[in-house]
Amino acid sequence: MKPENPDFAETVHESFARQSFMTTLGGTITAVEPGMVCIEYGHHEGLLQQHGFIHAGVGTSILDSACGYAALSLAPAGAEVLTVEFKVNFLRPAKGKRFSASGQVLKAGKRLTVCEGELRADGTSLIAKMQATMSILVKT
Amino acid sequence: MKPENPDFAETVHESFARQSFMTTLGGTITAVEPGMVCIEYGHHEGLLQQHGFIHAGVGTSILDSACGYAALSLAPAGAEVLTVEFKVNFLRPAKGKRFSASGQVLKAGKRLTVCEGELRADGTSLIAKMQATMSILVKT
Amino acid sequence: MKPENPDFAETVHESFARQSFMTTLGGTITAVEPGMVCIEYGHHEGLLQQHGFIHAGVGTSILDSACGYAALSLAPAGAEVLTVEFKVNFLRPAKGKRFSASGQVLKAGKRLTVCEGELRADGTSLIAKMQATMSILVKT
Amino acid sequence: MKPENPDFAETVHESFARQSFMTTLGGTITAVEPGMVCIEYGHHEGLLQQHGFIHAGVGTSILDSACGYAALSLAPAGAEVLTVEFKVNFLRPAKGKRFSASGQVLKAGKRLTVCEGELRADGTSLIAKMQATMSILVKT
Repeated sequence: MKPENPDFAETVHESFARQSFMTTLGGTITAVEPGMVCIEYGHHEGLLQQHGFIHAGVGTSILDSACGYAALSLAPAGAEVLTVEFKVNFLRPAKGKRFSASGQVLKAGKRLTVCEGELRADGTSLIAKMQATMSILVKT
Repeated sequence: MKPENPDFAETVHESFARQSFMTTLGGTITAVEPGMVCIEYGHHEGLLQQHGFIHAGVGTSILDSACGYAALSLAPAGAEVLTVEFKVNFLRPAKGKRFSASGQVLKAGKRLTVCEGELRADGTSLIAKMQATMSILVKT
Repeated sequence: MKPENPDFAETVHESFARQSFMTTLGGTITAVEPGMVCIEYGHHEGLLQQHGFIHAGVGTSILDSACGYAALSLAPAGAEVLTVEFKVNFLRPAKGKRFSASGQVLKAGKRLTVCEGELRADGTSLIAKMQATMSILVKT
Repeated sequence: MKPENPDFAETVHESFARQSFMTTLGGTITAVEPGMVCIEYGHHEGLLQQHGFIHAGVGTSILDSACGYAALSLAPAGAEVLTVEFKVNFLRPAKGKRFSASGQVLKAGKRLTVCEGELRADGTSLIAKMQATMSILVKT
């Protein structure tokens, strides 16, 4: 996939740095390619649900950002991306120390971009899978 | 809907208190009825996305807990609830000071319970709508 | 909800009449209001899955049309509606003789309209619930 | 993925033959492997929506069967599969003469199996993507 914005990586990093919620969750971007963004985070005490695993909402939030930035990486310069909707299946408990969420564009459009996201623990097993619709807003 | 567990409200509150992620997000339970749980939270600096609104993942996480506890309120004593999957539509930007997420059981089953969740800002406009499937695990 | 198109009901009926798949499924429109459309259909031999119940895809197809036409009822004259995505939970087996699918607009927008749909058997129990995103295309 | 049922392919074909709705839609199974089933169908006059394309519900119904049978291919002998829920994104209009829907198991479980489905036109472009949850019922 060809990026329309030659500075797509810088655009993604700058926008991500403004997401205070990613700082709260401990997320860091580890890869930005045209149509693909990867965010990693680790287990820590403030992210748990009642059984001591990481809350489903944490991986979901990170997957949402990964998918949104995957969409942004293919959008024109100056465009904004907003989440229209997503769906996530949780396949296994979020056991592990490090987690990696990748967002991948399935179809980039002028108004809507569809992405899928995969959450993996310690680089191996698939923990969750997202399918997301992003809205592309171009300032005019 | 009739609760099978006479101590359903205490069960929900105790489990919620163990979710450290809800503390991180600032969520507090404001209502527990058979088949319905409401959680509120406020705007704060660590929850934002790049435009200064609350990140979509925050409301999603709170809605997930509200739906999960709505399912737990109708489950037998000793049961555990795990999220199988959910889908959320974001209808409006999360503008406001206080947000209220309600989870409501659509159909309670022995193995699966289906819920819907609504997120509202300042008691009025609908910001997001969730449809969720919860797994009921009974220890034997 | 106020319709922008004064002829919304006629517009919906005309478009529905061109959906040959609705004829194949035996669907007929029974109500068109601003933001709400209801379609009914009956049990017949060509719609079944392996256990003799109506295939999940039948109710889904009817719910999709009901949601799409609910969105169209609030769109400007000349607009087209396309399904972006939907999600359906199946709560009970599709037992019954007559089925009623209602689509209801949750939020009407200029580009996207979000709807929910409910499928009921013989006017009573909820069989399936849909949450759908529709794209509004205005010819210019 | 290893099938538990040595006669998985025969089981899938027998069950599919009982789905009268697949006959109505013109669907035929073209591949059955452990964890993967492919169903093809063609354009015909009774499957259309208002713009002359194939109705979104047709591909959805075929994808649902493909995912359900992918789940069945990994289930124990005698098990039944029911659709819990699915979500579909429609990426492109269903233009073409022949369509191919493949269902693939992401995670097979004792009670729930999660699948994804892809719908392609004339063997090339991705038209729709499904993420589905199937319930596995074992007679006891």
